[in-house]
Amino acid sequence: MAAAEWSRRSQSLKGVILDMCGVLYDSGAGDGVAIPGSVEAVQRLKQSDLQLRFCTNETQASRETFVAKLNRLGFDISVDEVFSPAPAAVALLKERGLRPHLLVHHGLLPEFESVEQKDPNCVVLGDAAEFFSYQNLNQAFRVLMGLEAPLLFSLGQGRYYKEGDGLNLDVGVYMKALEFACDVKAEVIGKPSSMFFHSVLRDMGLQPHEVLMIGDDLVNDVGGAQSCGMMGVQVRTGKYRQSDESHASVRADGTEADLRRAVDLLLVHRDAPRTSS
Amino acid sequence: MAAAEWSRRSQSLKGVILDMCGVLYDSGAGDGVAIPGSVEAVQRLKQSDLQLRFCTNETQASRETFVAKLNRLGFDISVDEVFSPAPAAVALLKERGLRPHLLVHHGLLPEFESVEQKDPNCVVLGDAAEFFSYQNLNQAFRVLMGLEAPLLFSLGQGRYYKEGDGLNLDVGVYMKALEFACDVKAEVIGKPSSMFFHSVLRDMGLQPHEVLMIGDDLVNDVGGAQSCGMMGVQVRTGKYRQSDESHASVRADGTEADLRRAVDLLLVHRDAPRTSS
Repeated sequence: MAAAEWSRRSQSLKGVILDMCGVLYDSGAGDGVAIPGSVEAVQRLKQSDLQLRFCTNETQASRETFVAKLNRLGFDISVDEVFSPAPAAVALLKERGLRPHLLVHHGLLPEFESVEQKDPNCVVLGDAAEFFSYQNLNQAFRVLMGLEAPLLFSLGQGRYYKEGDGLNLDVGVYMKALEFACDVKAEVIGKPSSMFFHSVLRDMGLQPHEVLMIGDDLVNDVGGAQSCGMMGVQVRTGKYRQSDESHASVRADGTEADLRRAVDLLLVHRDAPRTSS
Repeated sequence: MAAAEWSRRSQSLKGVILDMCGVLYDSGAGDGVAIPGSVEAVQRLKQSDLQLRFCTNETQASRETFVAKLNRLGFDISVDEVFSPAPAAVALLKERGLRPHLLVHHGLLPEFESVEQKDPNCVVLGDAAEFFSYQNLNQAFRVLMGLEAPLLFSLGQGRYYKEGDGLNLDVGVYMKALEFACDVKAEVIGKPSSMFFHSVLRDMGLQPHEVLMIGDDLVNDVGGAQSCGMMGVQVRTGKYRQSDESHASVRADGTEADLRRAVDLLLVHRDAPRTSS
């Protein structure tokens, strides 16, 4: 689909959801680096008539720590604009009276402080990175095998993400590992889960067709949003790969160089008069 | 199927293949422990008219080290009677001119000494156990993603095995992880691969219908053998679980308490005169 096409269709939009890692910034040593033009792109969206939310599958740090990092990189973002899997998981665990065994990054533990964790009756998996040791994965496996009906939650299902110069394995890979080991199907909390996108839409008070998702992950950002009835545009930053543009099942509504370019195209038609077509 | 039934059918057999871990011994601290009656059961098979081979997916140690352990446990077994995935992998790598990046247990490295490993163009995965760190798995992932066509070999595809009091994740779990991460299908070397079973049959000079496989793993031992046309009997030791007896796709020709009992039933009809039925 030509850039002009999605941009023209975007005139009726009332809101935008932005993925964060790979769209706003690239992770790496320390805080990582802002992707050129993205700080200004966020500013321009905030000054427009569009509602704006951020939606991340980041689960290595609490939202507070994560947003503080984004602020240091120059982004004007507050915690209540950011949707991430951990708070959604906490709400779900409490609602169902579940006690998780957590296999998550130490940085995420503060999010689960209010949840009872003794005598676990489920396992919650996050992007534990270096905490995905054989011992830790085996411990989670043994908890699951000790349950009458193994219950596994995964905070996202990403395959990998880019950090510095290299690709790093993401939580979805370990989710698949435990699914196979225990012969269970995990329940995914976070993108691309419809429940997760709908919680963001509810917060915006908008319908799916009124909202555009912009992300670097074709399946989890673009595909997930489209499954909910939203438009999905992919940017060629972060984990984008050329092969995404000929993917077997997901086709983005548009593919743009970066967030700056996508926001240019999104806003160009908003001040211009509507042309008959 | 009643015990008597497979036992009666076994009269026409000319050979037996035994799985090792969970059938001959239970792994655990040090050498582990022989399963009661199994040392004598192996002796009785060796004194019978049946040919005998051992077939293991063990990949934590070289065959030499592994067989020495079995000998210390009291078993009369020699290296050339044992079939394991690493030598099969080495033969295949040389035949195809492949240079592996190895993600295997340090104990297995001697098996691969004769194989060129610089500038890898494939990944070979073994039961690396504690060497399955996040860093090591990520390194194997990056090698695969750096190849034009990722090529992954897995020494077995087991889900878990029993060690001492607990279950431990096996190589198949990490195979599934990398398959998902790289969107590839691994080539399995070892049980339940038909190629692997056929190499044992060739060595025995027997046809599949002349051979019985006895193992504790319903899918990889029993199912794998049956797929080749052999009979497969499961023992209720090692990783056996009650649920195996109502498995969706694999049904053992017989299920017996342990190797001693299986050998009792196997040999009882060999000296007795054939009865008309």
